[in-house]
Amino acid sequence: MRDVPTTSPVVVDAMGGDHGPAEIVRGAVQARREHGVPVVLTGRAGVVRAELARLGAVGEIDVAHADDVVPMTERGAGAVRMALSSLAVGLGLVRDGAGAAFVSAGSTGAVAACATDRLGPAPAVLRPALAVALPTTAGGATVLIDAGATVDPTPEMLAQFALLGASYAQLVLGVADPRVGLLSIGAEPGKGNRLTRRAETLLRDLPLRFHGPVEGGDVLTGVADVIVTDGFTGNVVLKNVEGTVRATLALLATEVGAGVGAVGGAGAGAVGSAGAGTQDVADPEALRRVAGRYDPETHGGAALLGLTGTVVVAHGSSRARTIARACVVAHDLARGEVVARLGDRLAVRPAR
Amino acid sequence: MRDVPTTSPVVVDAMGGDHGPAEIVRGAVQARREHGVPVVLTGRAGVVRAELARLGAVGEIDVAHADDVVPMTERGAGAVRMALSSLAVGLGLVRDGAGAAFVSAGSTGAVAACATDRLGPAPAVLRPALAVALPTTAGGATVLIDAGATVDPTPEMLAQFALLGASYAQLVLGVADPRVGLLSIGAEPGKGNRLTRRAETLLRDLPLRFHGPVEGGDVLTGVADVIVTDGFTGNVVLKNVEGTVRATLALLATEVGAGVGAVGGAGAGAVGSAGAGTQDVADPEALRRVAGRYDPETHGGAALLGLTGTVVVAHGSSRARTIARACVVAHDLARGEVVARLGDRLAVRPAR
Repeated sequence: MRDVPTTSPVVVDAMGGDHGPAEIVRGAVQARREHGVPVVLTGRAGVVRAELARLGAVGEIDVAHADDVVPMTERGAGAVRMALSSLAVGLGLVRDGAGAAFVSAGSTGAVAACATDRLGPAPAVLRPALAVALPTTAGGATVLIDAGATVDPTPEMLAQFALLGASYAQLVLGVADPRVGLLSIGAEPGKGNRLTRRAETLLRDLPLRFHGPVEGGDVLTGVADVIVTDGFTGNVVLKNVEGTVRATLALLATEVGAGVGAVGGAGAGAVGSAGAGTQDVADPEALRRVAGRYDPETHGGAALLGLTGTVVVAHGSSRARTIARACVVAHDLARGEVVARLGDRLAVRPAR
Repeated sequence: MRDVPTTSPVVVDAMGGDHGPAEIVRGAVQARREHGVPVVLTGRAGVVRAELARLGAVGEIDVAHADDVVPMTERGAGAVRMALSSLAVGLGLVRDGAGAAFVSAGSTGAVAACATDRLGPAPAVLRPALAVALPTTAGGATVLIDAGATVDPTPEMLAQFALLGASYAQLVLGVADPRVGLLSIGAEPGKGNRLTRRAETLLRDLPLRFHGPVEGGDVLTGVADVIVTDGFTGNVVLKNVEGTVRATLALLATEVGAGVGAVGGAGAGAVGSAGAGTQDVADPEALRRVAGRYDPETHGGAALLGLTGTVVVAHGSSRARTIARACVVAHDLARGEVVARLGDRLAVRPAR
């Protein structure tokens, strides 16, 4: 990314997501008009141009045609084989330097697999990692990395994830000197598993503000700006946070009789047989606002870091507003040259 | 445990926990008087007898004297070296067949380390596992195993954890044919990490009702009666559930202005700077009830399974009611002979 001019556009996959291309195209136009982010859309030219026409934006945004669409049900290998998909075409533009970053609301697995295949790891980076910003009770956000890209990392990879996560916190969250925690199961010496015990020795030697081990209960308290873990544990934790918020609001809805409506979509799945109550002691709006804070849509997308181009995966349910936000994040990350700025620091010494 | 008569008493560590020995002794007396569970108390005889006297139960319950007390801050090795602690003496009684099971509200790490050291794995069991029952939005409970005993298990150990967890669900939750899920990051073939991919092939061959892979968002939905995972991921998930419930209620308390008081102890930690609100739109009682459901105290204790004796670790904050419940669970598990009943099924074939 070092040689990509910051004026290079963010390439947006118009075909991914549950509401694409209509919402995706609207989001891309918002990103350009309201945030001044240059964008290019990839997908079926006819369909995409029709959406642009509806918004009077035909001349404003270039379209790179792609015949195929990767289905939302496709999670990996299958997507990689589709050479003419909007994913493949869009990532090709980034690989060839015609785009600064890539945004898609497609299946995270498919986007991650295609991006890793098309872009490959940036110089000195061992493996990519998925970064997700979670809102905390302290009022800010904590970056969870890796949220699912690399399920069996080495300690050296975890150390690089820490550096990538710290860059993300600086560039996207504006935290000057991020505190980095290592997700583990206790702070005492010898606690944790083989991976975290070896990673801890590496993290203590890195040029970053290492907070030390944190536990599962610290993910939403803001005790650290960045929480590093392997892609398996990180993905389980990310989904467990979403599920537990839904479950808590669903239980509360039944307890106070606010019912399904009170927690909206976020609670509907978990409420199950609870059904709608009669009295209405809790403020449904308040329940909705809390549900909203942990609704995947409001995370603003997960960033796949460590590849030769920046990739932001917006949630499949993303509406225009979320897509526009993802474009801004992708633009900021590309301009910040996440990997390039780390330079020599990425050369992590092997764990003792 | 095969040769322990079901009339053998449950040995209770009178000195563990934040409120011991007063609350512990009261709980032990409750277990005997209200649930007919035979109990023996271990700890400083003078102190324990004084508490028994206060409850008019001196003749009712035997006391095994132990000079030392393992501090709540002790998490492992240090506790193992204390040969005269109430932990060591109590576990010795179980090892020698004078007790059917052991209950302590001491530090989980210390109890697990001492129990593994004093009791050792039951015949054919590779490693012990910690089982915790979590309430679900479906109205029942899901057994999470391993919640922290074995952090780097092999696939064969995970398969044994599945069998132990199914026995626990049958004996303690009364589920006739428990559905067992494997905690992973997606149901597609090839998803998961090295450990879960190999464990899945083993679980499909076991004589149990294998539901297949489940994700982090399924932990509280009741989709499975038992969720199997390694002790590292399980401990992170357990603490993440508790922390996320606290965080959600804290956010809600601030959203609706119910304030810190509304979520009581369970929310206090997470509310942090949020402070108390002014209006009171949400029913504080409802918030307390939901907080209570996921308050560690109400889990009723974690069971360490797979050793030559049953060990139940109650939360450090346990009051008498919780200790009494832990005694009943320990008694049921001992009577059910968790390990013995599995017999040959524990001989898991190595993963392909």
